[in-house]
Amino acid sequence: MKKQLLVIHGPNINLTGVREPGVYGSESLGQIDEEIRAYCEKEGFTCEIRQSNHEGQIIDWLHEAMGRADGIILNAGAYTHYSYAIHDAIAAVKIPCIEVHFSNIQARNDFRHLSVIAPVCVGSIAGFGKNSYLLAIDAFKKILV
Amino acid sequence: MKKQLLVIHGPNINLTGVREPGVYGSESLGQIDEEIRAYCEKEGFTCEIRQSNHEGQIIDWLHEAMGRADGIILNAGAYTHYSYAIHDAIAAVKIPCIEVHFSNIQARNDFRHLSVIAPVCVGSIAGFGKNSYLLAIDAFKKILV
Amino acid sequence: MKKQLLVIHGPNINLTGVREPGVYGSESLGQIDEEIRAYCEKEGFTCEIRQSNHEGQIIDWLHEAMGRADGIILNAGAYTHYSYAIHDAIAAVKIPCIEVHFSNIQARNDFRHLSVIAPVCVGSIAGFGKNSYLLAIDAFKKILV
Amino acid sequence: MKKQLLVIHGPNINLTGVREPGVYGSESLGQIDEEIRAYCEKEGFTCEIRQSNHEGQIIDWLHEAMGRADGIILNAGAYTHYSYAIHDAIAAVKIPCIEVHFSNIQARNDFRHLSVIAPVCVGSIAGFGKNSYLLAIDAFKKILV
Amino acid sequence: MKKQLLVIHGPNINLTGVREPGVYGSESLGQIDEEIRAYCEKEGFTCEIRQSNHEGQIIDWLHEAMGRADGIILNAGAYTHYSYAIHDAIAAVKIPCIEVHFSNIQARNDFRHLSVIAPVCVGSIAGFGKNSYLLAIDAFKKILV
Amino acid sequence: MKKQLLVIHGPNINLTGVREPGVYGSESLGQIDEEIRAYCEKEGFTCEIRQSNHEGQIIDWLHEAMGRADGIILNAGAYTHYSYAIHDAIAAVKIPCIEVHFSNIQARNDFRHLSVIAPVCVGSIAGFGKNSYLLAIDAFKKILV
Amino acid sequence: MKKQLLVIHGPNINLTGVREPGVYGSESLGQIDEEIRAYCEKEGFTCEIRQSNHEGQIIDWLHEAMGRADGIILNAGAYTHYSYAIHDAIAAVKIPCIEVHFSNIQARNDFRHLSVIAPVCVGSIAGFGKNSYLLAIDAFKKILV
Amino acid sequence: MKKQLLVIHGPNINLTGVREPGVYGSESLGQIDEEIRAYCEKEGFTCEIRQSNHEGQIIDWLHEAMGRADGIILNAGAYTHYSYAIHDAIAAVKIPCIEVHFSNIQARNDFRHLSVIAPVCVGSIAGFGKNSYLLAIDAFKKILV
Amino acid sequence: MKKQLLVIHGPNINLTGVREPGVYGSESLGQIDEEIRAYCEKEGFTCEIRQSNHEGQIIDWLHEAMGRADGIILNAGAYTHYSYAIHDAIAAVKIPCIEVHFSNIQARNDFRHLSVIAPVCVGSIAGFGKNSYLLAIDAFKKILV
Amino acid sequence: MKKQLLVIHGPNINLTGVREPGVYGSESLGQIDEEIRAYCEKEGFTCEIRQSNHEGQIIDWLHEAMGRADGIILNAGAYTHYSYAIHDAIAAVKIPCIEVHFSNIQARNDFRHLSVIAPVCVGSIAGFGKNSYLLAIDAFKKILV
Amino acid sequence: MKKQLLVIHGPNINLTGVREPGVYGSESLGQIDEEIRAYCEKEGFTCEIRQSNHEGQIIDWLHEAMGRADGIILNAGAYTHYSYAIHDAIAAVKIPCIEVHFSNIQARNDFRHLSVIAPVCVGSIAGFGKNSYLLAIDAFKKILV
Amino acid sequence: MKKQLLVIHGPNINLTGVREPGVYGSESLGQIDEEIRAYCEKEGFTCEIRQSNHEGQIIDWLHEAMGRADGIILNAGAYTHYSYAIHDAIAAVKIPCIEVHFSNIQARNDFRHLSVIAPVCVGSIAGFGKNSYLLAIDAFKKILV
Repeated sequence: MKKQLLVIHGPNINLTGVREPGVYGSESLGQIDEEIRAYCEKEGFTCEIRQSNHEGQIIDWLHEAMGRADGIILNAGAYTHYSYAIHDAIAAVKIPCIEVHFSNIQARNDFRHLSVIAPVCVGSIAGFGKNSYLLAIDAFKKILV
Repeated sequence: MKKQLLVIHGPNINLTGVREPGVYGSESLGQIDEEIRAYCEKEGFTCEIRQSNHEGQIIDWLHEAMGRADGIILNAGAYTHYSYAIHDAIAAVKIPCIEVHFSNIQARNDFRHLSVIAPVCVGSIAGFGKNSYLLAIDAFKKILV
Repeated sequence: MKKQLLVIHGPNINLTGVREPGVYGSESLGQIDEEIRAYCEKEGFTCEIRQSNHEGQIIDWLHEAMGRADGIILNAGAYTHYSYAIHDAIAAVKIPCIEVHFSNIQARNDFRHLSVIAPVCVGSIAGFGKNSYLLAIDAFKKILV
Repeated sequence: MKKQLLVIHGPNINLTGVREPGVYGSESLGQIDEEIRAYCEKEGFTCEIRQSNHEGQIIDWLHEAMGRADGIILNAGAYTHYSYAIHDAIAAVKIPCIEVHFSNIQARNDFRHLSVIAPVCVGSIAGFGKNSYLLAIDAFKKILV
Repeated sequence: MKKQLLVIHGPNINLTGVREPGVYGSESLGQIDEEIRAYCEKEGFTCEIRQSNHEGQIIDWLHEAMGRADGIILNAGAYTHYSYAIHDAIAAVKIPCIEVHFSNIQARNDFRHLSVIAPVCVGSIAGFGKNSYLLAIDAFKKILV
Repeated sequence: MKKQLLVIHGPNINLTGVREPGVYGSESLGQIDEEIRAYCEKEGFTCEIRQSNHEGQIIDWLHEAMGRADGIILNAGAYTHYSYAIHDAIAAVKIPCIEVHFSNIQARNDFRHLSVIAPVCVGSIAGFGKNSYLLAIDAFKKILV
Repeated sequence: MKKQLLVIHGPNINLTGVREPGVYGSESLGQIDEEIRAYCEKEGFTCEIRQSNHEGQIIDWLHEAMGRADGIILNAGAYTHYSYAIHDAIAAVKIPCIEVHFSNIQARNDFRHLSVIAPVCVGSIAGFGKNSYLLAIDAFKKILV
Repeated sequence: MKKQLLVIHGPNINLTGVREPGVYGSESLGQIDEEIRAYCEKEGFTCEIRQSNHEGQIIDWLHEAMGRADGIILNAGAYTHYSYAIHDAIAAVKIPCIEVHFSNIQARNDFRHLSVIAPVCVGSIAGFGKNSYLLAIDAFKKILV
Repeated sequence: MKKQLLVIHGPNINLTGVREPGVYGSESLGQIDEEIRAYCEKEGFTCEIRQSNHEGQIIDWLHEAMGRADGIILNAGAYTHYSYAIHDAIAAVKIPCIEVHFSNIQARNDFRHLSVIAPVCVGSIAGFGKNSYLLAIDAFKKILV
Repeated sequence: MKKQLLVIHGPNINLTGVREPGVYGSESLGQIDEEIRAYCEKEGFTCEIRQSNHEGQIIDWLHEAMGRADGIILNAGAYTHYSYAIHDAIAAVKIPCIEVHFSNIQARNDFRHLSVIAPVCVGSIAGFGKNSYLLAIDAFKKILV
Repeated sequence: MKKQLLVIHGPNINLTGVREPGVYGSESLGQIDEEIRAYCEKEGFTCEIRQSNHEGQIIDWLHEAMGRADGIILNAGAYTHYSYAIHDAIAAVKIPCIEVHFSNIQARNDFRHLSVIAPVCVGSIAGFGKNSYLLAIDAFKKILV
Repeated sequence: MKKQLLVIHGPNINLTGVREPGVYGSESLGQIDEEIRAYCEKEGFTCEIRQSNHEGQIIDWLHEAMGRADGIILNAGAYTHYSYAIHDAIAAVKIPCIEVHFSNIQARNDFRHLSVIAPVCVGSIAGFGKNSYLLAIDAFKKILV
């Protein structure tokens, strides 16, 4: 049976394509989601993709993933830098979670240097634009066997 | 007439029993809520119990408590450590609020050492698992007379 | 055609008139909103006013403003001090945003000294109570021509 | 056979009733000790109560408690904030210890925000005046069974 | 009788129009002072405008304002960030003082994030170029009645 | 009736004359105490002088001074820099206390720059060797009338 | 013509298989290098793999890569955390460089939280053991076209 | 021949009597200067008293004192906390200088805790209102013999 | 004539054998003291061994050692990390003092990283359990000749 | 036509020869100025030399240099370490400015480690006594062609 | 069979006898190595002694020691304070390592207070000049049995 | 006889002309070395110039300079900011060393603000591109006589 991946886009990622194209690329999130879905299918995963600007909603989805998802790909956006509540949620649900970012966050503004969720993620991939998501799928292919 | 208590469980506390049983115990939140309700009744309080992973929802509930609750028992979970918005809400509604935690937060990771809501709470009780809630009820019995 | 302003009140501002009248004044938010509306009309703006205690909701509204509002007046309340997610939203939507506060935040508690949203706002006005909003309208009158 | 509790009052607590009555109440320590003794008896504990302004004396008493006390209630006063020697003593004797404070220490001056003894205590109760001690007895009733 | 405003420009503001036009605009200080004077007259204030690069001179002027000015508009330039002596002067003279800045100081270099004079000003207005001064006049119109 | 002063020398001050004569002078503490007594008599005070290396002992003496001493002259030695327990004792007994030091502590090693007891003392005199004590007597003469 | 990748293993990575197998896996570096070579071949890259414990040697190799390598995969080991000299070398050679780590460095000891080389890398991949290298090859496949 | 003392009052001290009487007393600086002069005469000193709000003026006066004054009494006001230039001037002129303050500066706002001039003064006297000056004269009587 | 060594065990060291045997070994302090005495005799020293949990008592003993001991071996326990009073005592008595610790303090909890007494000790030996004391005797054999 | 240099000596530099000869040398400032003038002439520059202890005066001179001086040599003395106002002045006038110091400021007291003006200077020369000025002239010879 | 010790001298230790004789003694490293060898022989160890100024060389030697040395005596010189790469090498090879220093590093300049290798060493000995090495041999005699 | 200078270029300086020409100029290091040699000859020095990316190599060269070089000109590149080992080497060899930098390091990224070698250099020259080296030769001309 196919492994199930849950992809969660955090705050402001719905504006991808509009927001700083030099950093985030010019494709819309809809287009990127299509690529993620196609890549999952090609690599033998089913997937579910969600986006929210609400910290609490992201936590709810992480909880609901228990018993349903085999892996989580999370771009927590700016919540990466201060949401200890998301940190606790990832720790609680015990599903392997990969942290992804469009940009290389350690190379940008100071407040983006600290990831409070990294300590509870199995790994992190940053700086490859939309490919960060595809590389996380590659990673789960190597991990979830 | 009986005094009314509002018990608010913050983020990830709905996973109690699932999440790190060594820290949070193995009873589900439903079971714990039953004990809280029974204890309130025995001690002569009515109570209302809520849980949310949403910072904004917790603030809304604190506001709605004005004119209805005589005391608030709040386990703000990880929001304890950075939600100045919840801090402001407690200060605004002027209902006595007791901060509770399952674990002794000063004995865990660094980011759990600071409580930003403590300055606006009448007291805090931490480290007694589910009993932290029952002790808060004991405390209100001594305070609300 | 008239310029459109979006006024967003952040967390706990719905309690204005109830919460620390010495700091925030004794008028209710409803009354203040009336004054804001009247002043907008007088100065030749249309306006829309919203309040939420939810960080995610505020981000959603900032996003929805794209293509509709010509200027944003934002009192982010306590989110001012830690919401990098709101920071990112303001930066993404590229609508001129003025930060306002009832009180002179640098003159209060330490945690209110830092505004994480200031770097993406065109200006800030603080310390004039409800007049901070009216002065922001004055400012837009000088800017949006 | 009854469980034995050791109550230790740290520095300056002998002045209770004299020192800042707004913070510590107006009863003398003698009166409070009477209430603690009565409450212990009612709840089925024997107890021994001591006070010292000497850090070394407090450590000596903690050591002597080995093999005699089943639980310790410690209000370490200002030593709470810098006595790593008391920290080591609590860790060494391995008797469950509850930290209590009259006032909600995180809500007062900065130097009172850090408790260096919390990491070796089973829990902490702060902010309920003399009732903090009684609540600690309630807590031991729930723990020591 | 008309209210009297004292406008003080601090260090380097005499170079406005020459210094970083992208930040400070290209009008000379003389031209800006004309606009300030005209706006005061239109709004019913008399005003006096001064500029100095000397910290001590600014303090002297603040002292001399006692009994003569009803409001002070102060752009303390770089002294904003370290002159506790100006802080003390504003506190001593007890005339309402509004802090203004051409640029949004929290959005520039780190050393400009802290205003040591903000705690003794009634409010602050930053980021609107020369209009910051005019908005301060608007503010005094709302305050000084 | 004569006012009564209590002079307390803290840790290591019994070694005066032996310890770093360049800093503390070459007279023994006994000789200095004679001068203090003579000066008190000449200025119309009775006095009592004590020395201890024990933090707890110093606190006990501060407590015992209640109802007996009209002023306290305290050289807390190294406890000056970390004894919040002595800080609390001075605050509790409410007798005016002057902090004295042989050397100008802000001019020596870093750890001597902070006085945790200064906030509860009426004043401080440092840097005049044994004369710091005599100047404190002069000060009490001006204060205790 | 095939793109050329340079893989550099930094200090102590020659001990892989020996050093903390729980963190770094139990395969020897020789075995891992075989996998890296095979994967490169399969994905259409030529590659060259080197290891050194010498900071200066790594810098020399980075310099020599100019005009020869199209991409660099660098696991700088502990140098990641303090070698500004390697930082400068990467910046100088202007060949896209991906930072890789066996473990999720943000989840380990404090001193491993900061990467001083991240700001000059195109991206980083951490936490997937030897797969971090393979994912970097996947990433270059997406980038170097 | 009589010893000559130079008394320098720093910024804002000319407002004594007007500024926060609770802290600085209600006498004018003129009255206080009279008392200082009388006390000097009585104790056998000649004296010269000056006040300036200008950091540079204070430095000039310190320089001019070389060869003329035997002791300096300096209340540097807020310059105490950041004027390394005054620090250097005191060090350069090599005349014994006593730092005085009306209030006990370590007991007030944080920015008043550090004296950058203390390391080059022979001693400091703080917290005795105008008497701080008189005590400094007493101190010079004991020192300058 | 034989050289005399003074060995001082600080707080909680009386519990050696009871407290964390993994860190401190399972021999009682009595047994260890026997070994220290025997080793001293064998190496040609006389010795005196004392233990106290009281900071003040340790200071008193350091003072009494003047003129009697030729070398001091001090395990100050947790006082190592904050007792500037013990620091001052060692500096005052001018007897060579070697700091010893059972465990390698820099390898344990953060608060044990700083030794405030190290700057006034001739050397320090840590991490060898009871042998730390014997090595200190070896050291004095090399120093005290 | 000859290039014009402006040399500004900041606070306390008028005391050179008097102040710490070990650090600043024993020649008077007048003698040094003679050497500077002679060296300028020899190297083909005209020069103007000024000294002030007043921060504001230095700023005024920097402003007046616009259109007159081709290069500025500034020894800002202690203002180097905190005068952001001088920083702003140098930035505003856009004349190349070289920072000079007699001593190697990074090798002296802590407060001298930071130069707040360095970021707006073209270069800095420190540690060569009066030769620092001559080396700055050498430097301008290489720069101003 | 005899135990084998590896002694590694880090950077600048080859200059012993030349460099600051007051701190490091006046014997050459060759002479000291002779004493170390003689002492090893007398105490029943074989030994190998090496010196390098190269961080990478020290790491290589630590690696080569696996399977050959029973104990390592490392004076890492200044690398002690920042070489996390040496830290990792010691941790990886799992041979007991004793950190030695000629001087008492905590008593010297600030940057020498932190040892980044201490956490992976079994113990440390500092302050006894060349005897620090001999004491480490003494220590291994007690450990390696 | 001619004085001998040793010029050492540290890491990445071999890339001069390639690396950020805006900062470092467009001449190759070979060309710059020619100018340094010519200038030395003209000014009456012999010189030797070396470059290495290896921290240990630089230390070795510093050691070898003893007895051969009269002055050292060192551009330690990024090692400037953390190599305490180079710091120690300079201190040990006791040859006057001048620190040079192409750019004004205090004006660039934060990590370049601290020079750990400055405290052991006689002076430093930064910000003049290749001329920094020539100015150092000028400086030695003034020093080495």
